[in-house]
Amino acid sequence: MHKVIFDTDPGVDDAMALLFLHHHPDVALLGVTTVFGNARIETTTRNALFLKREWKIDAPVARGAGETFIPHRISHEPPTFIHGDDGLGNIGVPDVFDVPLDPRPAHRFIVETIRENPGEVTIVAVGRMTNLANALKEDPEIVDLVKEIVVMGGAFEVNGNVTPAAEANIHGDPEAADIVFTAEWPVVIVGLDVTLQTVMTRKALADIRDAAGTRAKLLFDLSQFYIKFYEGRVPDGMVVHDSCACAYVVAPELFQTRAGTVRVVCGGIADGMTIQKPDGRTFGPSDWDGLPSQRICTGIDAPAVLQLIHDTIVSVKED
Amino acid sequence: MHKVIFDTDPGVDDAMALLFLHHHPDVALLGVTTVFGNARIETTTRNALFLKREWKIDAPVARGAGETFIPHRISHEPPTFIHGDDGLGNIGVPDVFDVPLDPRPAHRFIVETIRENPGEVTIVAVGRMTNLANALKEDPEIVDLVKEIVVMGGAFEVNGNVTPAAEANIHGDPEAADIVFTAEWPVVIVGLDVTLQTVMTRKALADIRDAAGTRAKLLFDLSQFYIKFYEGRVPDGMVVHDSCACAYVVAPELFQTRAGTVRVVCGGIADGMTIQKPDGRTFGPSDWDGLPSQRICTGIDAPAVLQLIHDTIVSVKED
Repeated sequence: MHKVIFDTDPGVDDAMALLFLHHHPDVALLGVTTVFGNARIETTTRNALFLKREWKIDAPVARGAGETFIPHRISHEPPTFIHGDDGLGNIGVPDVFDVPLDPRPAHRFIVETIRENPGEVTIVAVGRMTNLANALKEDPEIVDLVKEIVVMGGAFEVNGNVTPAAEANIHGDPEAADIVFTAEWPVVIVGLDVTLQTVMTRKALADIRDAAGTRAKLLFDLSQFYIKFYEGRVPDGMVVHDSCACAYVVAPELFQTRAGTVRVVCGGIADGMTIQKPDGRTFGPSDWDGLPSQRICTGIDAPAVLQLIHDTIVSVKED
Repeated sequence: MHKVIFDTDPGVDDAMALLFLHHHPDVALLGVTTVFGNARIETTTRNALFLKREWKIDAPVARGAGETFIPHRISHEPPTFIHGDDGLGNIGVPDVFDVPLDPRPAHRFIVETIRENPGEVTIVAVGRMTNLANALKEDPEIVDLVKEIVVMGGAFEVNGNVTPAAEANIHGDPEAADIVFTAEWPVVIVGLDVTLQTVMTRKALADIRDAAGTRAKLLFDLSQFYIKFYEGRVPDGMVVHDSCACAYVVAPELFQTRAGTVRVVCGGIADGMTIQKPDGRTFGPSDWDGLPSQRICTGIDAPAVLQLIHDTIVSVKED
């Protein structure tokens, strides 16, 4: 079993990833921690509680950061043109008063859950890295107690999506990401290099809806606005970024990876850009020297990942 | 005929590129301008004069910049482990007192030569962009009078060679490169993405030596140190970076290119990194907006380029 904390900013593709983790038989979801990004922290937290209720998820939800790791960074407006004003495709998410929130802030929930499960926790982080950086700041020793950090974020040999240099999750809090990637814990980064190859067609999403029950109906409905955003950007359907990171946890054999130190550019025109120094390559002295090697994904079996998402989500009928 | 100014820091692969331009029947070499980089400016200028004499090149040599466009930048020691202490593979380049130097600084030579040949001059720049930035500073109107700027430099979808982020020519003067790439003149950038694919084997170089005369003998000799540097980095031989830019001038059909605004990161861990915003891709507001589109090389027919170099250099027997 993979004991997973899902750090997320739902977000449409976050919702699919959450349902994937909830339904996968080899995943024990220990908690959902929220972060700002696809929407403000109030909205992403409300959405996590809403999905917890609608999808009958037992795991607690802990509210996380609503601002960057270092203060006074320029804050960017949430991308409502991608995820909708409500962060879930403008389906009209209601206020959620009947689902309790974990009393701890997300970073403390992360620290305590890791300490309660030494060597066993995988963190799947698909939003900004702020909660993880805050957790490292509060308790640096967790680097030796975590099993693995799997991140959706970054762009290595392809352009970013917010700027030509930077991908959204990293661009939203570059200092936090640089802290997380250069810490002495094992990180796997699932970036745009592979997620952009993983496009779920309208028909494939409808197939999931038809094969599963009301949970998948909600997933289908909340994805429609997001699919509209992707019109003209992909031939048909939507990119399922965040589910790729979840697929990596249970099926790493569907990915090719490359080892090397990863740094994040902080400031300047390339703010939020991710750059890896591949192990075994020689350069002059640089700011990558002496830091731990992490893995980035350089290849993906996209059809197999899409099939895995389908099979996982439809594997559980409604209860 | 292509009227060419060759802006260069010889430099081993610069020497090959110079011989290529000198021998190509469709190139009229109007001048050689030197810049610091592969060695100090005194050395690269001496080497240009030496090659002019040895290879009986009529074009004048004008000495260019020995420091970066903006002052007080951290200066890097010349890469003597690549090009030798004398910049030409430690063949023991003698002092050259009998070859006159153009009295003008390189940037003024560039400006005046462009104005004397409006719309006709191609500048092939295979060192740092300092002379070109200085020329633009002195006479911004030359942007409308140049035919094309062809640059060897940068790394777009591959790592740099000085740091994981940056290629040497751009890393050596990032502000100058950013000025050159964002000016309103047509630039084609031939970067590591394609030059690293263009490896001349020892045998291919020996074939050139055997088929041509004493000029090629000198080229062969001065390349041996550089070939040693490449041992373990390429299977056999050496990367002929600078000749790729010259090949582009006479045979652009051997390259694939992509259009888009190019910026250079100045400062920070990615200092000297080149990033293109491909035309037709949508991003959020960024520092690439509103600037001219330039072309970068994304593909190369490396065997054909190597053949072109061979055929061109051996096409002229000694005179």
